[in-house]
Amino acid sequence: MTMDELDRLAASMRSENLTVEANGRMLTLRIARTQWKNSINAALIREIGAALDAAEDSSTCRLVVLRGEPGCFCTGLDFQETAGVSDVPPSDTVDIDKFMALLRRFATSPKIIVSVVDGKVIAGGVGLVAASDLVLTTPRSEFSLSEALWGLLPCCVTPYLIRRIGFQKCYSMTMTTLPISAEEAHRFNLVDELTDNPDDSLRKLALRLNLLEQETIADLKSYFRKMWIITSEMEQTAVQETTRLSALPRVRRNITNYVQHGLFPWHRKD
Amino acid sequence: MTMDELDRLAASMRSENLTVEANGRMLTLRIARTQWKNSINAALIREIGAALDAAEDSSTCRLVVLRGEPGCFCTGLDFQETAGVSDVPPSDTVDIDKFMALLRRFATSPKIIVSVVDGKVIAGGVGLVAASDLVLTTPRSEFSLSEALWGLLPCCVTPYLIRRIGFQKCYSMTMTTLPISAEEAHRFNLVDELTDNPDDSLRKLALRLNLLEQETIADLKSYFRKMWIITSEMEQTAVQETTRLSALPRVRRNITNYVQHGLFPWHRKD
Amino acid sequence: MTMDELDRLAASMRSENLTVEANGRMLTLRIARTQWKNSINAALIREIGAALDAAEDSSTCRLVVLRGEPGCFCTGLDFQETAGVSDVPPSDTVDIDKFMALLRRFATSPKIIVSVVDGKVIAGGVGLVAASDLVLTTPRSEFSLSEALWGLLPCCVTPYLIRRIGFQKCYSMTMTTLPISAEEAHRFNLVDELTDNPDDSLRKLALRLNLLEQETIADLKSYFRKMWIITSEMEQTAVQETTRLSALPRVRRNITNYVQHGLFPWHRKD
Repeated sequence: MTMDELDRLAASMRSENLTVEANGRMLTLRIARTQWKNSINAALIREIGAALDAAEDSSTCRLVVLRGEPGCFCTGLDFQETAGVSDVPPSDTVDIDKFMALLRRFATSPKIIVSVVDGKVIAGGVGLVAASDLVLTTPRSEFSLSEALWGLLPCCVTPYLIRRIGFQKCYSMTMTTLPISAEEAHRFNLVDELTDNPDDSLRKLALRLNLLEQETIADLKSYFRKMWIITSEMEQTAVQETTRLSALPRVRRNITNYVQHGLFPWHRKD
Repeated sequence: MTMDELDRLAASMRSENLTVEANGRMLTLRIARTQWKNSINAALIREIGAALDAAEDSSTCRLVVLRGEPGCFCTGLDFQETAGVSDVPPSDTVDIDKFMALLRRFATSPKIIVSVVDGKVIAGGVGLVAASDLVLTTPRSEFSLSEALWGLLPCCVTPYLIRRIGFQKCYSMTMTTLPISAEEAHRFNLVDELTDNPDDSLRKLALRLNLLEQETIADLKSYFRKMWIITSEMEQTAVQETTRLSALPRVRRNITNYVQHGLFPWHRKD
Repeated sequence: MTMDELDRLAASMRSENLTVEANGRMLTLRIARTQWKNSINAALIREIGAALDAAEDSSTCRLVVLRGEPGCFCTGLDFQETAGVSDVPPSDTVDIDKFMALLRRFATSPKIIVSVVDGKVIAGGVGLVAASDLVLTTPRSEFSLSEALWGLLPCCVTPYLIRRIGFQKCYSMTMTTLPISAEEAHRFNLVDELTDNPDDSLRKLALRLNLLEQETIADLKSYFRKMWIITSEMEQTAVQETTRLSALPRVRRNITNYVQHGLFPWHRKD
């Protein structure tokens, strides 16, 4: 596949939830679900997967860049679909297994996955960031794990977030549910670079990363997989726990009350 | 159990080594062994355990707050009891297994354990801090692992301290035995918040944590246990190694010389 | 062995690639391969091993200090020997197994290994630093993992570097191949102390470390080995992957082109 082919391919891939754009050795995916606050639905997971298929088929492509909207990178899994209270047929709702598999694919794809964040990152969105190979952010971004407020946990995010920022920071983000500023996120390594000009930083980074041969990227990602504690069993534990929690009556009540009546869980507390 | 019951319970629990106080959803335990520099003896371990029993029985309680004296949080295991040179009958000396179990309980209790530090934290005291879910500190605090000076090691502290601050910082603290300032402790995550006004910070934190349902806290702590490398075998290794080291003639000599004659180990060195 | 004996021993050990000097309880090894940019060859690995043998035989010695040349600590494995394109007979080229074993020995030796860095540290040189118990550096030092530019990976370095700086920093250093300043290296714990006067810092550190009994150092290092994820299998994986990568025709071509014609891999790229 030549660079022109990558261009043509990107042009042909435009979809409902994602805009795809090729530029040299870089394939840029922009989450484009403004109306739903850039949440993750089943279709988005499929479309990112298809874009990764295309990138992996291309011998030109080195980098896959994931971006959101200005001010909002991603707000996590679509609540309506997660809770099964949306109009989407059950067969097309978010399958948590597929979300976990997407994060694993970020970490094992022979392409370098770079997230460029400019705005809010919440819950599952933090998972996309944590599983990315490299992350750039603007100073106005904010990162939070809000799951516990609903009786849920960031189960799929945890393995990759611990790998990136260590146990305690992941633990305290999960427990306090408080947002972390871009500056703090940079200080403890949730993001690799804090920059006022992400396009410029990305261009410089790409120049450097383009020096790597494709096979080396594949070797590198595959080797590091063996040097850390994430296992398939751990990922299965994550999927099972999410499934268990999502099915709990109190959790379903929390989500339904919010989706249907705009009520937060603590509004009905003592 | 209502909030009033928690109050009454706290009032009834006042003891030799610990003062217990209820305040809303919060049960505060203050280590009160001023005369013995807030060291940990067998009775203190039992009394903290009893307070945790009460907290866990209460559906109101969310937070258990552990505090020390002003200027001294905790100076670690009582040397006289550890070395078996105290007047306390052997059947009532610190059982290292019970200390390890207390740290595990901090990490697995369905209540959130918050340590509020204002002063010195030494040896086993660092273990109480490291195993806490969240830690606040004032700027004047200082943290050190002095065990190696006596031929001992912070065996029970290590699993939880590595979990919190990473391998190398735990390793260098153990090896150099040098104190770490509150500011540095905050920079590398031994404490979660550095504050001039811990009561105010604690109040804000409690407001946030009170949004979590009790079951969610239990789920969270149980889930994170599966996402990290601490195992029962590792904890047994810690207990066995402490037992082995404490029984070594040179270690017993080091401690006896200090307890009976005020001599430090290096005073009798070449 | 008395201190005088350690002195005499050090004097007798002067060799082609290393200068050895005794000073009180400290044995200082200086990598002295200026002509070859302080790269690591088979002879250097042997000579460091012999110096460690002597240190371990001495009951006086507490610290083994590893230093480089001013401006250059170590630039990693000798490329000519690694690729088998040097004049050195194959039986005397770097055996990657021996390099991995040297790092393990740093981490398990009953002596404290302190690296004092003042200048460039590249590739395998970062491994020597990462596996050291404690590291001091001057502000002008710089640390980089350049392996991926050649189609190689810092396989042996990775276990020890992750142990020291966490997964993500090791991952991003490997992938971007960009140098890290001393200040940044200090911030994320690749070095334990940043100092303008390493001799003074080392002297203070030695005063403190000399308080430890020899057996305690041995106990400490052996205990921490059980508290972390590095296993013999992981080290074997590292050796096997380095061996596989070094034998790849494209990697050998990269190195031969550089060694014989001064060409970098990217010079022959599209």
